[in-house]
Amino acid sequence: MSFTEEQDYLDYLDRQARVPRGFRFYRRSITFNAAERPGDEAYRMNLSYLHSDAVETPAAVMTTTNRFPGAPVILARERIAAGHLRGVLVNNKVANVGAETGLADARRLADCTAHTFAVPERQILSVSTGVIGWRLPVNEMESAIPRLPDSPCSPREFSQAIMTTDRYPKLAWSGGPGEPGPVMLGAAKGAGMVEPNLATMLVFFLTDAVVPPVLLDRVQRRVVNRSFNALSVDGDQSTSDMVVAMAGGASGVELNERDLETLWQPVADALALEIVRNGEGTSHVIEVIIRGCPDASLARKLGRHVVDSPLVKTAISGNDPNVGRILGALGDGLSRFDPEGRIDTSRLTIALAERVVYRDGSFVLNQESERILAGTFQAAAMDPVLKGYPQDRGTVPIIFDFRGEARESVRVLGSDLSHEYIRVNADYRT
Amino acid sequence: MSFTEEQDYLDYLDRQARVPRGFRFYRRSITFNAAERPGDEAYRMNLSYLHSDAVETPAAVMTTTNRFPGAPVILARERIAAGHLRGVLVNNKVANVGAETGLADARRLADCTAHTFAVPERQILSVSTGVIGWRLPVNEMESAIPRLPDSPCSPREFSQAIMTTDRYPKLAWSGGPGEPGPVMLGAAKGAGMVEPNLATMLVFFLTDAVVPPVLLDRVQRRVVNRSFNALSVDGDQSTSDMVVAMAGGASGVELNERDLETLWQPVADALALEIVRNGEGTSHVIEVIIRGCPDASLARKLGRHVVDSPLVKTAISGNDPNVGRILGALGDGLSRFDPEGRIDTSRLTIALAERVVYRDGSFVLNQESERILAGTFQAAAMDPVLKGYPQDRGTVPIIFDFRGEARESVRVLGSDLSHEYIRVNADYRT
Repeated sequence: MSFTEEQDYLDYLDRQARVPRGFRFYRRSITFNAAERPGDEAYRMNLSYLHSDAVETPAAVMTTTNRFPGAPVILARERIAAGHLRGVLVNNKVANVGAETGLADARRLADCTAHTFAVPERQILSVSTGVIGWRLPVNEMESAIPRLPDSPCSPREFSQAIMTTDRYPKLAWSGGPGEPGPVMLGAAKGAGMVEPNLATMLVFFLTDAVVPPVLLDRVQRRVVNRSFNALSVDGDQSTSDMVVAMAGGASGVELNERDLETLWQPVADALALEIVRNGEGTSHVIEVIIRGCPDASLARKLGRHVVDSPLVKTAISGNDPNVGRILGALGDGLSRFDPEGRIDTSRLTIALAERVVYRDGSFVLNQESERILAGTFQAAAMDPVLKGYPQDRGTVPIIFDFRGEARESVRVLGSDLSHEYIRVNADYRT
Repeated sequence: MSFTEEQDYLDYLDRQARVPRGFRFYRRSITFNAAERPGDEAYRMNLSYLHSDAVETPAAVMTTTNRFPGAPVILARERIAAGHLRGVLVNNKVANVGAETGLADARRLADCTAHTFAVPERQILSVSTGVIGWRLPVNEMESAIPRLPDSPCSPREFSQAIMTTDRYPKLAWSGGPGEPGPVMLGAAKGAGMVEPNLATMLVFFLTDAVVPPVLLDRVQRRVVNRSFNALSVDGDQSTSDMVVAMAGGASGVELNERDLETLWQPVADALALEIVRNGEGTSHVIEVIIRGCPDASLARKLGRHVVDSPLVKTAISGNDPNVGRILGALGDGLSRFDPEGRIDTSRLTIALAERVVYRDGSFVLNQESERILAGTFQAAAMDPVLKGYPQDRGTVPIIFDFRGEARESVRVLGSDLSHEYIRVNADYRT
């Protein structure tokens, strides 16, 4: 599936997305002046809301482990304790982190939404993404919330409304027409902390399967570990990252643990890939695959360390199959995460794409292979400036095979480091 | 001390550097064709050698903990075991990592040097920096080594000969004229892994103090921990990093542990700062200071995590005092390195330069302070393209004060992330 125009991509999302029964989407826009900024420049903010019709909707939330969580994270941890939610209010433009009245503001907005949709206050979250340090424009938001019921929208419009600097909206789904049984829909916002002061990866999963809260929580942890916890755009976890799942049950189909995971995992995997691909400044998606490593948690750390290495990132940005940097980054990661040297590296092979470049302790290099690999990298490159739709589905695969006993292979996704990344992140004043 | 021309800087090093008695420096150049590269392009390589006159010269070596060490590292670990060295052969241009005959080549070169200078083979190291994956041009090197005695040079010339893509040579010293007692001289090569395929931080310390090997080793570990182990240019430790110290004893002055540390630490600190400042693409040196953190090892990890954050690096590159990113990076580091939450963050203050920007859980920001801070960052900026001499002595200080009980404050140095970094690291083919 590839697109050459934004409208084609949006039409595809509108036509193909599977919407679980019993959920509704709303959005409105407001304008406001930021108290922290001089002058009277008006900023535009989208208010979005997703709502479950089911009176008792099982829900699960995973939040950032950053030690300075934003107010929405603190509120979500409180309100998810009972295992049920009816809705989530989302705003872009202001992240509500480190503002003195942040938690009180989040509560006020959630409670106002609860009154508007006539649901219990404790079952509504208020989730924010955008500038860190500013106060939310609470008065303007409170005026708009009662009019949300007049502004229903499609899932695709919801996924657009929660964007900040995302290059394109991100929706994924499984189940639905042609297949019996329930549907899983996921919408994601974020691309690492890519623009000055903007933060937050937000992911929402909605299903009409019947799932008790405890099972929803347990499966979500596994699914998220393999997808969003195995990607890295900037290396830092933001103050505001949050994943919310709601299971309305309108399909009437009860799923066991395994079937739920089968429905859910591909949706999470697809969104995780899209989050990396859509990062501002990304020109290649790097896919590190670790095989034969007996410790999956260590393998995930090693993979993240390699995709976070600025030297690996910049080499790939320049279409350079620089195996010295890749070996160096892996060796540095092993010294950090396996200081006792439990992992046997003597049988390690490294392959780029499917071509072995390191074996038996030495590099296997020649001019021919380097030229072929550079061409492979070039073919997976995207224009980091272009916006609106995913340009390419390719990745740059780096395969580490320790050839030991391992139950599973581990995959970690990351982005490269391009001039556009620096432009977006450093030069926005000029 | 500031310089506006390369020659001024070189003259300053020649005039001021304190040379410990009993050491000699040599250098020659050779040309060679790389077996791994097609065509007949000739590459130039410097061969440098530092020599101690003392028959039993106490020595200490610290090497990279990277799990894929280069051949020179493996040889050095073997040969330092006895605690004495007479000399170190250094080549630039080829790092001797991952080459099939690497260890045999390193031995051949060291042994040839030992014969030339009539010292025991086991007391000579062969140290390499440059391209990873290539074989050393051993034949050409072996032809040149017997002529090294004809080519003595100054410490400044030695420090230039070991450079690869370093922006300028790096020497530091303490003791000497005007002060009774012995001298410590340090020379350093490296700036993180800054150019495609080039690697290695090499540091050589020479003193004419009388110091037994065990003491030399112990003090070196402390001194290096506070200096080179508290800096980060790319985040990765290379396959080839090595610090070598030799104490020839020609001053006849025996130093106790404390006096040795006092002589040594400022030399290591100065070289560490210069290594960061001289990194290709560096336009700001970031100086993270952590106060009131009861765990110094944790504090060092946090500091490295903040200076390694691409988001912090790019903000500072753009002279943007982006406190949201700084708080986000610290919070992410705490969640990694203090998962049990032992460190109390409730009294944390964050200051940029000396201006408090975060206190009591909230940001303290206004337009005025942001303008002043941006000006401070601007004042510490260097032109990342300019070569030959250090342009500026300033840093961008980020101060975290946890206000807990702490024996010491911790300082970590890092570089920013500029377009020039990407140009050097990604675009060298174009």
